[in-house]
Amino acid sequence: RFGETEAEDMVGVVTGLAWTEVGGEILTIESVLLPGKGNVKQTGKLGDVMQESVSAAISYIRSRSISFGIKPPLFEKRDIHVHVPEGATPKDGPSAGIAMAVSIISALTGVPVRKDIAMTGEITLRGRVLPIGGLKEKLLAALRAGITTVLIPKDNEKDLAEIPDNVKKSLKIIPVSHVDDVIAQALVRKLEPIEWEEPVEPIAPRAAEPVGTALPH
Amino acid sequence: RFGETEAEDMVGVVTGLAWTEVGGEILTIESVLLPGKGNVKQTGKLGDVMQESVSAAISYIRSRSISFGIKPPLFEKRDIHVHVPEGATPKDGPSAGIAMAVSIISALTGVPVRKDIAMTGEITLRGRVLPIGGLKEKLLAALRAGITTVLIPKDNEKDLAEIPDNVKKSLKIIPVSHVDDVIAQALVRKLEPIEWEEPVEPIAPRAAEPVGTALPH
Amino acid sequence: RFGETEAEDMVGVVTGLAWTEVGGEILTIESVLLPGKGNVKQTGKLGDVMQESVSAAISYIRSRSISFGIKPPLFEKRDIHVHVPEGATPKDGPSAGIAMAVSIISALTGVPVRKDIAMTGEITLRGRVLPIGGLKEKLLAALRAGITTVLIPKDNEKDLAEIPDNVKKSLKIIPVSHVDDVIAQALVRKLEPIEWEEPVEPIAPRAAEPVGTALPH
Amino acid sequence: RFGETEAEDMVGVVTGLAWTEVGGEILTIESVLLPGKGNVKQTGKLGDVMQESVSAAISYIRSRSISFGIKPPLFEKRDIHVHVPEGATPKDGPSAGIAMAVSIISALTGVPVRKDIAMTGEITLRGRVLPIGGLKEKLLAALRAGITTVLIPKDNEKDLAEIPDNVKKSLKIIPVSHVDDVIAQALVRKLEPIEWEEPVEPIAPRAAEPVGTALPH
Amino acid sequence: RFGETEAEDMVGVVTGLAWTEVGGEILTIESVLLPGKGNVKQTGKLGDVMQESVSAAISYIRSRSISFGIKPPLFEKRDIHVHVPEGATPKDGPSAGIAMAVSIISALTGVPVRKDIAMTGEITLRGRVLPIGGLKEKLLAALRAGITTVLIPKDNEKDLAEIPDNVKKSLKIIPVSHVDDVIAQALVRKLEPIEWEEPVEPIAPRAAEPVGTALPH
Amino acid sequence: RFGETEAEDMVGVVTGLAWTEVGGEILTIESVLLPGKGNVKQTGKLGDVMQESVSAAISYIRSRSISFGIKPPLFEKRDIHVHVPEGATPKDGPSAGIAMAVSIISALTGVPVRKDIAMTGEITLRGRVLPIGGLKEKLLAALRAGITTVLIPKDNEKDLAEIPDNVKKSLKIIPVSHVDDVIAQALVRKLEPIEWEEPVEPIAPRAAEPVGTALPH
Ligand SMILES: [Ca+2]
Ligand SMILES: [Ca+2]
Ligand SMILES: [Ca+2]
Ligand SMILES: [Ca+2]
Ligand SMILES: [Ca+2]
Ligand SMILES: [Ca+2]
Ligand SMILES: [Ca+2]
Ligand SMILES: [Ca+2]
Ligand SMILES: [Ca+2]
Ligand SMILES: [Ca+2]
Ligand SMILES: [Ca+2]
Ligand SMILES: [Ca+2]
Repeated sequence: RFGETEAEDMVGVVTGLAWTEVGGEILTIESVLLPGKGNVKQTGKLGDVMQESVSAAISYIRSRSISFGIKPPLFEKRDIHVHVPEGATPKDGPSAGIAMAVSIISALTGVPVRKDIAMTGEITLRGRVLPIGGLKEKLLAALRAGITTVLIPKDNEKDLAEIPDNVKKSLKIIPVSHVDDVIAQALVRKLEPIEWEEPVEPIAPRAAEPVGTALPH
Repeated sequence: RFGETEAEDMVGVVTGLAWTEVGGEILTIESVLLPGKGNVKQTGKLGDVMQESVSAAISYIRSRSISFGIKPPLFEKRDIHVHVPEGATPKDGPSAGIAMAVSIISALTGVPVRKDIAMTGEITLRGRVLPIGGLKEKLLAALRAGITTVLIPKDNEKDLAEIPDNVKKSLKIIPVSHVDDVIAQALVRKLEPIEWEEPVEPIAPRAAEPVGTALPH
Repeated sequence: RFGETEAEDMVGVVTGLAWTEVGGEILTIESVLLPGKGNVKQTGKLGDVMQESVSAAISYIRSRSISFGIKPPLFEKRDIHVHVPEGATPKDGPSAGIAMAVSIISALTGVPVRKDIAMTGEITLRGRVLPIGGLKEKLLAALRAGITTVLIPKDNEKDLAEIPDNVKKSLKIIPVSHVDDVIAQALVRKLEPIEWEEPVEPIAPRAAEPVGTALPH
Repeated sequence: RFGETEAEDMVGVVTGLAWTEVGGEILTIESVLLPGKGNVKQTGKLGDVMQESVSAAISYIRSRSISFGIKPPLFEKRDIHVHVPEGATPKDGPSAGIAMAVSIISALTGVPVRKDIAMTGEITLRGRVLPIGGLKEKLLAALRAGITTVLIPKDNEKDLAEIPDNVKKSLKIIPVSHVDDVIAQALVRKLEPIEWEEPVEPIAPRAAEPVGTALPH
Repeated sequence: RFGETEAEDMVGVVTGLAWTEVGGEILTIESVLLPGKGNVKQTGKLGDVMQESVSAAISYIRSRSISFGIKPPLFEKRDIHVHVPEGATPKDGPSAGIAMAVSIISALTGVPVRKDIAMTGEITLRGRVLPIGGLKEKLLAALRAGITTVLIPKDNEKDLAEIPDNVKKSLKIIPVSHVDDVIAQALVRKLEPIEWEEPVEPIAPRAAEPVGTALPH
Repeated sequence: RFGETEAEDMVGVVTGLAWTEVGGEILTIESVLLPGKGNVKQTGKLGDVMQESVSAAISYIRSRSISFGIKPPLFEKRDIHVHVPEGATPKDGPSAGIAMAVSIISALTGVPVRKDIAMTGEITLRGRVLPIGGLKEKLLAALRAGITTVLIPKDNEKDLAEIPDNVKKSLKIIPVSHVDDVIAQALVRKLEPIEWEEPVEPIAPRAAEPVGTALPH
């Protein structure tokens, strides 16, 4: 289903812009939660680099889960399955990183993703959005697919000079530098942080020793 | 046993249309449930892409199990074995995806599959049916095998123009766009949804904190 | 020990006819049960296809264990080791499938296998016997080895036309279409089905909900 | 230490005759038991075939442990480490099978192995001794190493015709057809069978149902 | 994000100087702690040597954790994820070892890393800093990236003779011989050792036997 | 840090003489104990043969732990990490076996290793020291590194004829035939055996049956 977008806002479904054997392409990314034990399954002929970027996205989300309104134990009681159709087409590279993050966070929170938006950018463990290659081809693919809004890495803003004017006129192009901006743009409603206090399972060795200081996550 | 159909409606046995080294072929897909712990075994010289499509089929079924009348804990108390004879013939590709889904759902529910039906189409994690290649060769294989009804992806409808008239006259060809349509066509009786409420294993950290909101699956 | 049969009926020991690097051969297949946890060990330089056919044989036996008189929990409290001497000779292909099944079922039930019988045929997950290649070479190997009775797939009956008359006169050739027929022929006594009712470990989520319907295996 | 024997009878140390990159050689095989959980470790650059023959030897010993005087739970409370110096020399093939069996059974029982004996032969899961290749080279290696007694497979007796007379005069050559004969020859004292009754952990599903019949191992 | 440094001191984020396919480069190293069981995840296309140096860094930190103020059980209750953007660029070699150590220790203690510092050096299991290659290229990369202070292995001090004067003038170059020196320089505040006494889980076999001597770590 | 020795006696640190891509070299071997479950980690680009010799060393030490004064349960409550800097240099072969053994036994007992000693020799599962190759190159490397004493395998004594006189005059060369001799020479103090009686976890099946005989390790 390259080159075609969803008919409605859906939970866990995101349009990424990536690079495949046949050039710039839109990728539909699907995530579902299943009862489980914190395992992650990845399917759709994903290369090592793309798999590592799913892994980085999940660690970022976990390390910041409270600010996204996700109760930390959810990660231990669910498995996450990320799938990228079309299953026979090899896909690789880090540029679907932020789309992976949005798909997973949508599945975890149950908040749908805007159907008319696409995005590209590498994600780091701290949520920064790193620049990608092939911006022009990716924007053209988005245009062909009927996308109206595209999130691109702030550090790729300079490459917009090379993009034809008609493309820039037809697409709303939003530069982003952090995954939190991406989430704010891509989900249909705002995520509300929760309060959370880790259950008091003391790490201290002796009953006599006070356990006052919080341990870092 | 390529090119030959079953003598009666059976549980867990489905005729798929796929692509093997020798061209369009019908594949018999067999699934059985065993006492177990949620493991999945796949045999019959299946390539990576075909294995991933079994995986996507199972996640789709799990995420929707209540609507199929399957109690969720069944997945943790059974292993699923999917086998595709003939064991020495390599098989690959995503086009048996929907047939895999029907085979597994039949095994899980105990509802038999119609013996005179065959099907082809890639499955996504949300149950959409994606188009496949080699439609003509697959329909010819179905015809040779005595199949009367074939389910094809809606997005392959346009390819019917290239199919010889005698094939189209001999086969009832039904385009489908979602796995739920496939299941409705392929099983001998309708699946009844059940009610299910997750056992209250609270994710909340403190006894004092009310656990009112349902968590997403 | 290719080309030689056993001196007496033994438990877990079966003569299969298969294909190795040196042509049609008889293979001795040995299975033993060990105290364990349901693991399966396979040794004797078996290729992937032969290993998958052991796996299919075991799932068939498990899914039908009550009709063979085998208490289901036995599978969780024993390991099964299947070995095929001569250990340095690579062996592959699905055609020893039914011999594997008989070896394992003999080990599980303690009922010996007839020493003067050999067999060939692929097994499916439902117990059907699929046709194999190289029938002539396999029958010649059986003859050289002093076998008197050979079970062949029903779908290979047509190939008997090409078999020399002296071979057909010296061997009792019995076509079979289902593993249950194979077992009936190969074991020295009939297996008696047992009654079995799964221990009531309810899958229901709420105490209030009656758990009346049996779940499929 | 190829070509040299031990100075005294030792527990777990056996001289095997096998085939390495440099021709017929004597191999020292060492086994030790360690507190553990039934794991098996194999070191010394052993090829797949040699590793599988260790595995077959262990399953044979386990399936017959009572007759060797070994309490079955010992296998679950110990790890077995089999090592074959010299660690940089690749070794393979099934012909050290019976030597592996003797080394392991000596470690399990604590009964030492006769230091002046060497042996060669493939082992099956039922303890039969299968013929090996390169008999002449192996006997010459044994002679060079100061061995006085060699156990060879019964089915290799016919090959003794090709062995020079001086070799046959210098070595006591004993043909064996079963591992039990090997053990009787190689250990310094006779193993005494024990009585053992499996702890009554019933496999029966219902309290009402009597559990009278013994289950096979 | 090669060639650019962070805008503020951050926890778990360190600038390493390493060698990639394109020459001397600065690498941003990110570590986060997650609720877990002591697993370590490494992403960013890291080669075997770089992965082993992460492993050595962690073992060093664990073996010395009390002196860094880290309660030992923290290692069993957290997973550590180390990521090195840019995910598509292969990275290898041991020279980021001390930077890995600082990143992990910062994540474990919650003490930020100075943003204007970079470092290079192999780490050993006892914390010694071993010399690296390509010092000149690495210093030039640091300079381009706006770094002001660089830690280098003491054993590379002799290579400073070949470094252009302007580089040596622009960078504060500090030779270090032990990871403890590196930590002292790189973190924004001093780590305070804690007292810790292992919970008394006696290793002694008999109640009668006094367990007075401390066991080594 | 090839070609240089330690400044003081250290726990777990041993100088081995081995063979690398660049000829005879001294290798520093480091071992540390960590809280754990009996896992062994090996880093430093070690080849299969070197890894197997670490494994043999550990099994030897475990099987003899009481005579070294090590309480057996320590092995189940600690992980052992063996690292060989320089991490980017591939190392292989069995000749560092006895150095591995000394490093591990020093870490387990807390007794330091003499800093001026180096050693080479393959280790067997029973602690015998087997001969190695490249004696001359290894002794020269030891000399360059400022080593004063070298332990070599007894079976290499004959190769001393080829060693230049100045080397033999500058180094104290001690032939050893068993790891126990190596330990006696290399550690700064004598290890004291302990008494140990395995906790009485009976292997007997029936309460009525006396469990008098000790089971072998
Ligand atoms: Ca496409
Ligand atoms: Ca890429
Ligand atoms: Ca066919
Ligand atoms: Ca394909
Ligand atoms: Ca043969
Ligand atoms: Ca084959
Ligand atoms: Ca030799
Ligand atoms: Ca061989
Ligand atoms: Ca760059
Ligand atoms: Ca490198
Ligand atoms: Ca060096
Ligand atoms: Ca070597």
